[in-house]
Amino acid sequence: MDCMTTELLGKSMIGWSRSEGSEVFAHAVQPGSGAQLEPAYVCATDEEVERALSLASFAFGDYSQRSGKERASFLRAIADGIEMVIEDIVARGQLETALPEPRLRGESGRTTGQLRMFADLIEEGSWVDARIEHAQPDRQPLPKPDLRSMQRPLGPVAVFCAANFPLAYSVAGGDTASALAAGCPVTVIAHEAHPGCAEIIGHVVQKVAQQCGMPEGVFSLLYGGGPKVGQAVVRHPIIQAVGFTGSRAGGSALMEIAARREQPIPVFAEMSSINPVIFLKGALARGEKALVEAFFVSLTLGVGQFCTNPGLVFLEEGSGDAFLTMLKDLVEASSAGLMLHAGICENYKKTTEATAAANGVEILAACKTHVGADEAAPVVFQVDIEDFIANPNLQAEMFGPATLVVRGSIEKIHEAVTRLEGQLTASIHGTDEELAANADLVAALQGRAGRLICNGFPTGVEVCSSMVHGGPFPATSDGRTTSVGPLAILRFTRPVAWQGFPNAVLPAELQEGNPLGIQRYEV
Amino acid sequence: MDCMTTELLGKSMIGWSRSEGSEVFAHAVQPGSGAQLEPAYVCATDEEVERALSLASFAFGDYSQRSGKERASFLRAIADGIEMVIEDIVARGQLETALPEPRLRGESGRTTGQLRMFADLIEEGSWVDARIEHAQPDRQPLPKPDLRSMQRPLGPVAVFCAANFPLAYSVAGGDTASALAAGCPVTVIAHEAHPGCAEIIGHVVQKVAQQCGMPEGVFSLLYGGGPKVGQAVVRHPIIQAVGFTGSRAGGSALMEIAARREQPIPVFAEMSSINPVIFLKGALARGEKALVEAFFVSLTLGVGQFCTNPGLVFLEEGSGDAFLTMLKDLVEASSAGLMLHAGICENYKKTTEATAAANGVEILAACKTHVGADEAAPVVFQVDIEDFIANPNLQAEMFGPATLVVRGSIEKIHEAVTRLEGQLTASIHGTDEELAANADLVAALQGRAGRLICNGFPTGVEVCSSMVHGGPFPATSDGRTTSVGPLAILRFTRPVAWQGFPNAVLPAELQEGNPLGIQRYEV
Repeated sequence: MDCMTTELLGKSMIGWSRSEGSEVFAHAVQPGSGAQLEPAYVCATDEEVERALSLASFAFGDYSQRSGKERASFLRAIADGIEMVIEDIVARGQLETALPEPRLRGESGRTTGQLRMFADLIEEGSWVDARIEHAQPDRQPLPKPDLRSMQRPLGPVAVFCAANFPLAYSVAGGDTASALAAGCPVTVIAHEAHPGCAEIIGHVVQKVAQQCGMPEGVFSLLYGGGPKVGQAVVRHPIIQAVGFTGSRAGGSALMEIAARREQPIPVFAEMSSINPVIFLKGALARGEKALVEAFFVSLTLGVGQFCTNPGLVFLEEGSGDAFLTMLKDLVEASSAGLMLHAGICENYKKTTEATAAANGVEILAACKTHVGADEAAPVVFQVDIEDFIANPNLQAEMFGPATLVVRGSIEKIHEAVTRLEGQLTASIHGTDEELAANADLVAALQGRAGRLICNGFPTGVEVCSSMVHGGPFPATSDGRTTSVGPLAILRFTRPVAWQGFPNAVLPAELQEGNPLGIQRYEV
Repeated sequence: MDCMTTELLGKSMIGWSRSEGSEVFAHAVQPGSGAQLEPAYVCATDEEVERALSLASFAFGDYSQRSGKERASFLRAIADGIEMVIEDIVARGQLETALPEPRLRGESGRTTGQLRMFADLIEEGSWVDARIEHAQPDRQPLPKPDLRSMQRPLGPVAVFCAANFPLAYSVAGGDTASALAAGCPVTVIAHEAHPGCAEIIGHVVQKVAQQCGMPEGVFSLLYGGGPKVGQAVVRHPIIQAVGFTGSRAGGSALMEIAARREQPIPVFAEMSSINPVIFLKGALARGEKALVEAFFVSLTLGVGQFCTNPGLVFLEEGSGDAFLTMLKDLVEASSAGLMLHAGICENYKKTTEATAAANGVEILAACKTHVGADEAAPVVFQVDIEDFIANPNLQAEMFGPATLVVRGSIEKIHEAVTRLEGQLTASIHGTDEELAANADLVAALQGRAGRLICNGFPTGVEVCSSMVHGGPFPATSDGRTTSVGPLAILRFTRPVAWQGFPNAVLPAELQEGNPLGIQRYEV
């Protein structure tokens, strides 16, 4: 692909075409200034949604039969294409999302890294979990048939762009990459907070899909001025699974729509987590200053706009005074930060106000500097552990740089942990002796979260084979999956068995002699 | 365990105790005679349901930490125990279900075989998919943490007994075996059609759980005189997943309850499938007699009461006349058979009458012998392919020995296949040349089913590593899983990652030096 400067047209991508659009428009708005950014984004019409999904349905028959190597080339071409438009992304991304340039460059790197990780996975091919059991015609009392199984793609998938990851969990982010890798056409619903980033990346995917000889409909990008287009897509019988990263309300709404369809489908929604961090006494005794500084960085990173932000801290009774004094100093001296968009900022104000008003809650520390439009100020609340246990509303996520400190005995902390909703992460700081002595507490944390962190902080999600970015509801809609790492591909596949087929009709992965040379279970 | 003759008490098992029960009773009824069988089964009270689940919750903390070897011993002891009460099962099973003795003995063997298969799986231990990635403290720009992940149990599971598998998909059947293997306590809801079989097996599980030193609550068995008890269990916040085999209406009701919970949970329901069988011309030309005889056996096996019963046949235009003539002769000379219970028989009458009344449907052949109480008579319907395509109601399952024959061109058959609902199985008969020439049709079948069968019939589900007994809705609630074979264990687990933990605190599966000697991904 040539190096390009993307001209923004403000229109959905329906297969290889641009939409005409409806009469409904939505502009991106610059956080802080409130300025409307050009162009106006035209919402897709009902007919355009229908056409995009119809194309996806046709594309599935072809695309799902492409070899892992072909799909891998496609994913790599997308990654290469993104690198060619990096300056466009950085320029537009700063305007639309207020994310700083280094973050946008870093997130681009993560996005291309994910695409190439899935490309490697499917090019190598063993991920399909091929299982071959040869016939035993002489078995008594009944012959055993020849049976072979492997993972196959579900069908067309809908992916919703995430407000807080305009690149890594949006148009060509982790959900799209894993669904395309699995063999599923993807229809992306753009997020109104960063339609320009969506268009730049969407244009790359649309162009390279054609250049790689992929079928029309393997990718479409839809703009909608509210939930209407997205909900219509999830409701549509052609769609077979949904990827979503966003709010609990948004994810729950999609789960409900999906469950009420004539054919219910899986929704993989990553929604809401307060990521508890427990500090045992011994950990604090090793040096509270380093701990509090690292905690403060984790709390305020990206203006707290990470799903792994530490929104809940447990301290042991009779410890942590110095920790809290230092935290107070850091927070009071901190600056407010511009959030991704006005809606997120309003929600931050609403949720922090609700916490402040809850029974027994005090403000331990609040940022003292001026708070401008669309800015969030770091804040630390404190509450007695009995009040925390008694009030499940204190588990509501405050998406931003806010946290709630709870002090109590180990027994009470254990009780509070068992009553926590599902979490993406749970962290515990302690000496080796303390951890061994509190194995029950670690087990309780394991029961509530997808990832346990020892003497570390939850922000920073490594993209690797052993990562689990998931967890019981409401952290995700289905804690049996991860949205980060190669296992994310299994969200969009199902096992299929072939019984008694002649070799030539079998998929290459299951043929005699293992022509693809993949790892297989074979007896 | 000593050899025993089980005394039937008619009461739920709540942990190690027997319930007192409510004032609601339900008797098993002998199919055919309609005779009430003793004892009366007393329904569990709300308090008893609460106590069973509360015990399950406590048991989870302990049971989920037991080693694979300990859980394997427990499963093997259950299998051994079932073998000791086999005569009781055979005697009671014949009375309650009208299933013949050889079937009950065979199903017992399958049940104990499944228990031992899961025991082998968890004793060996590699199923947990352990992934170890060592820290890279010097990595640039950021150090990589030590990350390790494996599958862990979800929590207490509810299992519903299946009407048509009183042993292999009931109290200690595949769902229970896989959930217990995963580390999940199981609360079983008995089926009203065979409460005595449930009690005999439940007594075995209760007794060996104690003998094996398992925690109280690892198993409970609840009787209910209708859907109330089962629905209360699925609604209860302690339950984390559901296993069900039964009707589409029953499974859909549980899916709805599970989706509406404050914390939605996965339901693994195996519900409804008509298992299409396509006969290409060449296959018929090779010998219609053998084919029609094998088809007739598959259709009438167990009075058609298998989820894999072939309820839909496609024949190519201009072929199949001799096949249909022979089928007609076989069906007309066949006998009616006693069904599992009166409710299933009523449903068979209702669904076959609905098919008979549908536009364009004719009765090709019907059993001519006397049809007694609770008996089902084999019947073959025929309909024009255009009428079939136009009427989705013709895809409704007729649970019993009924099938619908549809003739059309390959193109029309292909079109009909793409419009089919999700299926457990799809079969195609053809010569190697025909199969190669109809790769698109095979691909279309693959899109609709969990298992494809070539030149064979769907009944007879091999329990092995490459079996997929699943399929898109409504065949199952979640086509991404299988309820048969070792992969069924993954329905009841979720991945969990440990980041930066000292070795001694890690589960043995993830410790340095691989103390369990399991297969691991390690970098």
